[in-house]
Amino acid sequence: MGDSRRRFLKELSGLGAAAWAAPLLSGAGGAAAQTAEPGKKLGFALVGLGSLSGNQIAPALFQRTKLCRLAGLVSGHPDKAREWAKRYAVPEKNIYDYANFDQIRDNPDIDVVYVVLPNSMHAEYTIRAARAGKHVLCEKPMAVSVKECDEMIAACKAAGRQLAIGYRLHFEPNNLEMARLARERVLGAVKVIEASAGFRIGDPAQWRLNKALSGGGSLLDIGIYALQAARYIAGEEPTSVSAQVSITDPVKFKPGVDESVLFRLQFPGGAVANCSSSYATGLNRFWAGAEGGWFEVNPALNYTGIKGRLSGPQGPRDFGLPAVDHFAAEMDAFSDCILNERPTTVPGEEGRRDQRIMAAIYESAEKGSTIAL
Amino acid sequence: MGDSRRRFLKELSGLGAAAWAAPLLSGAGGAAAQTAEPGKKLGFALVGLGSLSGNQIAPALFQRTKLCRLAGLVSGHPDKAREWAKRYAVPEKNIYDYANFDQIRDNPDIDVVYVVLPNSMHAEYTIRAARAGKHVLCEKPMAVSVKECDEMIAACKAAGRQLAIGYRLHFEPNNLEMARLARERVLGAVKVIEASAGFRIGDPAQWRLNKALSGGGSLLDIGIYALQAARYIAGEEPTSVSAQVSITDPVKFKPGVDESVLFRLQFPGGAVANCSSSYATGLNRFWAGAEGGWFEVNPALNYTGIKGRLSGPQGPRDFGLPAVDHFAAEMDAFSDCILNERPTTVPGEEGRRDQRIMAAIYESAEKGSTIAL
Repeated sequence: MGDSRRRFLKELSGLGAAAWAAPLLSGAGGAAAQTAEPGKKLGFALVGLGSLSGNQIAPALFQRTKLCRLAGLVSGHPDKAREWAKRYAVPEKNIYDYANFDQIRDNPDIDVVYVVLPNSMHAEYTIRAARAGKHVLCEKPMAVSVKECDEMIAACKAAGRQLAIGYRLHFEPNNLEMARLARERVLGAVKVIEASAGFRIGDPAQWRLNKALSGGGSLLDIGIYALQAARYIAGEEPTSVSAQVSITDPVKFKPGVDESVLFRLQFPGGAVANCSSSYATGLNRFWAGAEGGWFEVNPALNYTGIKGRLSGPQGPRDFGLPAVDHFAAEMDAFSDCILNERPTTVPGEEGRRDQRIMAAIYESAEKGSTIAL
Repeated sequence: MGDSRRRFLKELSGLGAAAWAAPLLSGAGGAAAQTAEPGKKLGFALVGLGSLSGNQIAPALFQRTKLCRLAGLVSGHPDKAREWAKRYAVPEKNIYDYANFDQIRDNPDIDVVYVVLPNSMHAEYTIRAARAGKHVLCEKPMAVSVKECDEMIAACKAAGRQLAIGYRLHFEPNNLEMARLARERVLGAVKVIEASAGFRIGDPAQWRLNKALSGGGSLLDIGIYALQAARYIAGEEPTSVSAQVSITDPVKFKPGVDESVLFRLQFPGGAVANCSSSYATGLNRFWAGAEGGWFEVNPALNYTGIKGRLSGPQGPRDFGLPAVDHFAAEMDAFSDCILNERPTTVPGEEGRRDQRIMAAIYESAEKGSTIAL
């Protein structure tokens, strides 16, 4: 094992900052120089055929990934699954429902299970997939509690399978550039981070507003992007958090489901982050104020159209980076890691870090005081 | 007294929201339709000939005000005062120093004293000016404590003179438009406000970094703009505040002088504000997220070049409002109130509100818990 590979693995075993550096080094979403079996594409099974799977993930797997393909479908709706199977040329034998899902262990077409279910089902299907001998890509938030995260990590470890969390912005060039500008202090040290993510939620009957399925409100679903951004711009782990939850529509937002959450993070290097999460209004900006200027992505988390810019001594300029399909890049990167037996840069441990901080955010809001992490 | 005038005065006696409405109704900085003495210009004496006076206030008074003029100078530097007197055609007899300042009572050329001194001197010179029978315009922050604010208000009341605080953005069209869009719910109710104001401070020897002169750090000097914006966008008074102070340079920032302050405000109508103040990095944006879109000023608080825009169902558009000289507008508006015996829309009570909240912000940071207001 060469020095650079040893350093790489050492970095991966460290904190988020080091793990985050990896995609920058390896080239986000790019195919590996060499794979174990040249030309092999990993088979992905999608669990949960909702709008994210339908509008983003399945099309990406069908048309835009280089190292993986859509090979299986898991759904509680047989008609829907058959319809998708036709559209995406998935053999009928690779369709599962939630009852017979565990039989996926006997299906060699499936290498990776991508869990795209409501939050409270992430742990169960991640663990069942691992026990079926599959690698798992699990949508964010990883779970609804730190305890579940621990169980998921343990299950994948016991099965000798990789677990990655669907942090698509780790594979988005403008967001990567934000982390690089901060890490390399291109405009000096970052002092204040502002990260905001939100949208105005519609249908009150949707699972996102049902505590039993969502495990929380805007924070777990969308505010997690602001938390992620603050962490990868700061390049280190926060030492304390302070937060408040606000509810203006108590009919739509039942106990345990937040509408808006404002939270602050203190980082050991001195940077502070002011973050906003909301289901009441659109929020879509990650911004960093440094000693010699600022840089931002705005919009920051759209599936397409993300735009980065900076302003330093030479005045403002756009990042001018190419657009990528976040989901294709994310799935190719994970496939690359599996094919080449390298650890993913967005492991369960990364998901667990967010989960722990989000639990502290809710605790801080409840107590009205700062929580040390 | 007509109905509209009675309503106007009633509004002025209410909370900040109502007071803020006034410039919108009266036309910010516009000349009154009729004045007590047509053609009369009030004489302003500037106390403190620093860079704000030299670069902004004196030129505005000399060239761009309609209802007032530069008539007197108060300085501890006789040479500087004489030089300014020549430049701005101020008679030598209207030059004072800090020792003989009280004699200004006998000078009929001076109607208004504009206090542009370091923060900790605001109270003394406001009170001395009021006792000398002059109206007072005092730069923000009004003072360094709520107690001082009370004494300033009482002194002006006892003297029967008006006291206004130099909140120039109350007379800036884009900031006024922010308040109007929120108040009239043009894009629905405002849910999340983000307001940030800061700059990277230079010379460590300046008064802003000397607690005895500044009374604090970035918050009192520049973060107050973010506090103001949150209050005038919300259109009501906050009910609680939570804050943290951070210091990354303990050599430059001595005890009691904050470097950055992040603070949150909760408003009774449900809006929440995430605010940042800093001497470590540039911050310059007031933003409001509403049910049906957002609106912002960015840059928000420059002397020139403020730009407002909104994005609603019809997509984004600039406010397209004319630029005004903030200081000329502020001084003309105050002169208009004095000439027409109407109360100012930015009275000492408005300055006191900010002072009380800023004291709570520091208290919250110290205690690490939310403070009810």
